[in-house]
Amino acid sequence: MPATQPPPPNRVAVYPGSFDPVTFGHLDVIRRGAALFDRLIVAVAPVSSGAGKQPLFSLEERIDLLRGETAGFANVEVAPLCGLLVAFAREHGAGVILKGLRAVSDFEFEYAMALMNRRLEGAIESLYVMTSAEYSYLSSSLVKEVARLGGALEGLVSPAVAAALRRKFGP
Amino acid sequence: MPATQPPPPNRVAVYPGSFDPVTFGHLDVIRRGAALFDRLIVAVAPVSSGAGKQPLFSLEERIDLLRGETAGFANVEVAPLCGLLVAFAREHGAGVILKGLRAVSDFEFEYAMALMNRRLEGAIESLYVMTSAEYSYLSSSLVKEVARLGGALEGLVSPAVAAALRRKFGP
Amino acid sequence: MPATQPPPPNRVAVYPGSFDPVTFGHLDVIRRGAALFDRLIVAVAPVSSGAGKQPLFSLEERIDLLRGETAGFANVEVAPLCGLLVAFAREHGAGVILKGLRAVSDFEFEYAMALMNRRLEGAIESLYVMTSAEYSYLSSSLVKEVARLGGALEGLVSPAVAAALRRKFGP
Amino acid sequence: MPATQPPPPNRVAVYPGSFDPVTFGHLDVIRRGAALFDRLIVAVAPVSSGAGKQPLFSLEERIDLLRGETAGFANVEVAPLCGLLVAFAREHGAGVILKGLRAVSDFEFEYAMALMNRRLEGAIESLYVMTSAEYSYLSSSLVKEVARLGGALEGLVSPAVAAALRRKFGP
Amino acid sequence: MPATQPPPPNRVAVYPGSFDPVTFGHLDVIRRGAALFDRLIVAVAPVSSGAGKQPLFSLEERIDLLRGETAGFANVEVAPLCGLLVAFAREHGAGVILKGLRAVSDFEFEYAMALMNRRLEGAIESLYVMTSAEYSYLSSSLVKEVARLGGALEGLVSPAVAAALRRKFGP
Amino acid sequence: MPATQPPPPNRVAVYPGSFDPVTFGHLDVIRRGAALFDRLIVAVAPVSSGAGKQPLFSLEERIDLLRGETAGFANVEVAPLCGLLVAFAREHGAGVILKGLRAVSDFEFEYAMALMNRRLEGAIESLYVMTSAEYSYLSSSLVKEVARLGGALEGLVSPAVAAALRRKFGP
Repeated sequence: MPATQPPPPNRVAVYPGSFDPVTFGHLDVIRRGAALFDRLIVAVAPVSSGAGKQPLFSLEERIDLLRGETAGFANVEVAPLCGLLVAFAREHGAGVILKGLRAVSDFEFEYAMALMNRRLEGAIESLYVMTSAEYSYLSSSLVKEVARLGGALEGLVSPAVAAALRRKFGP
Repeated sequence: MPATQPPPPNRVAVYPGSFDPVTFGHLDVIRRGAALFDRLIVAVAPVSSGAGKQPLFSLEERIDLLRGETAGFANVEVAPLCGLLVAFAREHGAGVILKGLRAVSDFEFEYAMALMNRRLEGAIESLYVMTSAEYSYLSSSLVKEVARLGGALEGLVSPAVAAALRRKFGP
Repeated sequence: MPATQPPPPNRVAVYPGSFDPVTFGHLDVIRRGAALFDRLIVAVAPVSSGAGKQPLFSLEERIDLLRGETAGFANVEVAPLCGLLVAFAREHGAGVILKGLRAVSDFEFEYAMALMNRRLEGAIESLYVMTSAEYSYLSSSLVKEVARLGGALEGLVSPAVAAALRRKFGP
Repeated sequence: MPATQPPPPNRVAVYPGSFDPVTFGHLDVIRRGAALFDRLIVAVAPVSSGAGKQPLFSLEERIDLLRGETAGFANVEVAPLCGLLVAFAREHGAGVILKGLRAVSDFEFEYAMALMNRRLEGAIESLYVMTSAEYSYLSSSLVKEVARLGGALEGLVSPAVAAALRRKFGP
Repeated sequence: MPATQPPPPNRVAVYPGSFDPVTFGHLDVIRRGAALFDRLIVAVAPVSSGAGKQPLFSLEERIDLLRGETAGFANVEVAPLCGLLVAFAREHGAGVILKGLRAVSDFEFEYAMALMNRRLEGAIESLYVMTSAEYSYLSSSLVKEVARLGGALEGLVSPAVAAALRRKFGP
Repeated sequence: MPATQPPPPNRVAVYPGSFDPVTFGHLDVIRRGAALFDRLIVAVAPVSSGAGKQPLFSLEERIDLLRGETAGFANVEVAPLCGLLVAFAREHGAGVILKGLRAVSDFEFEYAMALMNRRLEGAIESLYVMTSAEYSYLSSSLVKEVARLGGALEGLVSPAVAAALRRKFGP
């Protein structure tokens, strides 16, 4: 293991996801990432990561909701994620992929993704923050299920996202 | 969740551990951390984290071995960890605690530690890198067990650490 | 944490699931629940919990099979689950949601569900029993796969359920 | 699986542990248990479950602290746990062992314990509640480590327990 | 547990999977299996195990790719898996089902499958090898995702499989 | 990945452990191993694997109990494990290390051990069987705890081992 002198640290991070829709758990990661990096690019994947699942919100709707939620962060931007995540990061000058970890099942998936991304592009590092305990159970899927069944969305998503969910599932 | 503007990112990280002794897995995390931060402080805990277990190497020996291994990194320093980790980080001007994750059992322990440290000092963020696959099975305990039984240490620890282990366990 | 005097314990529990079809693992939970509560309401979800998966048996068929299996339990009833589980529990006067745990993957999903349900309705408690070791590997999905491929169903489901499975998959 | 009519449900539960010392996580389980059962007996094991670890507080101290914390619950009592847990439960007329689950590692240990206890005494059922998310990272070990290093104990344990911890570790 | 004398060990193993497509992780298991058994039959399931997911490659294509990859192993053959795995094994005179384990999520699924297969056919034993660390993150799904997005496939699959993937996803 | 022709399969396996004392779970693995290999060598480690824990039974006692339990298996022998496991295997002409898997925590530890042993001696393969569901909760530690507290040992260990445990813990 040769101990070479590293290049100066890169200050740009990408936070990828499908954000269908953005929850308070995602915003917790964004808030932490905005404090850790000069620039944080929220990269919205066109399709849900799950095989064959159609997203509830279109890519445009998901980006619009995220832009609304992150308007108060001067160093956060939102962009559609086209192609490989590591290629997207390289093109945007990002040296870090930022993700949130909530649970053991997250961990295993993220470990595989980190190792694969490292192989595809060794110069980009994956970094993880632990989601707040109060949002550890939150996921977009669970939020959509609650919305579909008419449950209260306060404390899970913002009022704007709650309104968007209610428009999808009816009154 | 108010979206306040964060302070400028902090560029100093602490990497805590007992390093009894430092392995190639630890050095993998150090190398990644040195590339991500302006300064990386390796903080060596006086006792092993395991309840009641005595370390094989004294604090001084563990610090000396680490200083030897990290001599080539201009922005890495090694210091004894006294008191609470978050207090140590604050005193050293560090805004980040950096850890490596290898396995599910790591994850659960680290999640608890991250949440506890966040409660003790909200301004310090815990960040995680995934250990390289080739070191995912490495631990100081396993290395000591191999050394105790006379197994080959190449590829697990540096020659200097291997020599120190052999001095402890005899020829 | 104020130590207030709780109201008298509620003696009604809901055991939710999709039961597509009911297995000996489910009946193990039902038998335990019937011994623990005055009333146990088995709540059958219209669709499988997995996104997009169509159930093999219709809601009516699943309820009929469950009623046959639980006919010997005087304090067990079976009902379709409409809307949010906590709303269903409240309407039926149940203070407890009962679930079975078999595996780590169950645990993480159930932990998220329990915390979400607690947020939606704090007065309803989720309680878990551990499934018998002999049924720890049983799931409706695995039973359907065995039935589809013509495997023996003895010891996995009752004769009535085995016959219903054979009618679905042909001789 | 014969569907026999169960005896009337038993309304007494035992909540076992070493409580070295009692944390807000334990009190969260006790509060939930007190609401679910007619009587809840907190059973304090003489030694920590970990092999060879000496408890910080004596059995008497741990019982005293628990009695102080649970004084406001009319249906909660505290007793030393002598012998096998299932024998203790039987002698105290309890039909339920209540435990809290926080994490995957808890789950695996508790699953083994539940199956072993079921084998030793089939008439006693083990039931689990999920610990609140805000206490999911709390453990007596972590609290003792924080206290030993002089960290703040607010929000982790009660003022009385914090004072007892400070007496053990000095000012 | 009576200690009866077992029959002479069976030297034929089946390695089942969907192989959509075969990766270096699969080949790692095949190489290990070929060294452990007289005959290793790679059994290719017609459909992916995931519910409802369509395979990318047809059964014929998957078998052809596997035959190409395993041509150098004299004791490895490839066959379509029809019906129950244990019935397939019995018909082919195999006493062992061989699988690779990479991760905790693999483990839980495989534990359930092993117990189910043991119940269906007690004379056939399931045996597991640990996948090499360097392939621990590899899966056919991840490889297909990388290929779909135009990422480099070197080190993940053979040149022949990489070419087949590129034909599916276009230049 | 060159596809070289492997040497003829090795038919000798080592099953290592501390066996303090041997349980029905261990015997389940031994019975399966005896049916899979020409020779199965049960290798008894001098000290428990847990750091610093003293075994309850001496190495001689543990070997004697194992020899009693396995007397009916013509192809099983019991030997003390001196030095590295892979060196022991090599000296005894064994090409396989056989282990049982019960739980996720087993899996992670065994994965690390398998990768370490593979690095120390690539020619020896680690193979795993899944323990029977009915013994999935059994461990020597739990059996000793039950024995210490005077619980019934039937179904957990043989009468000879139960008698040995009772001699250790008194009437």
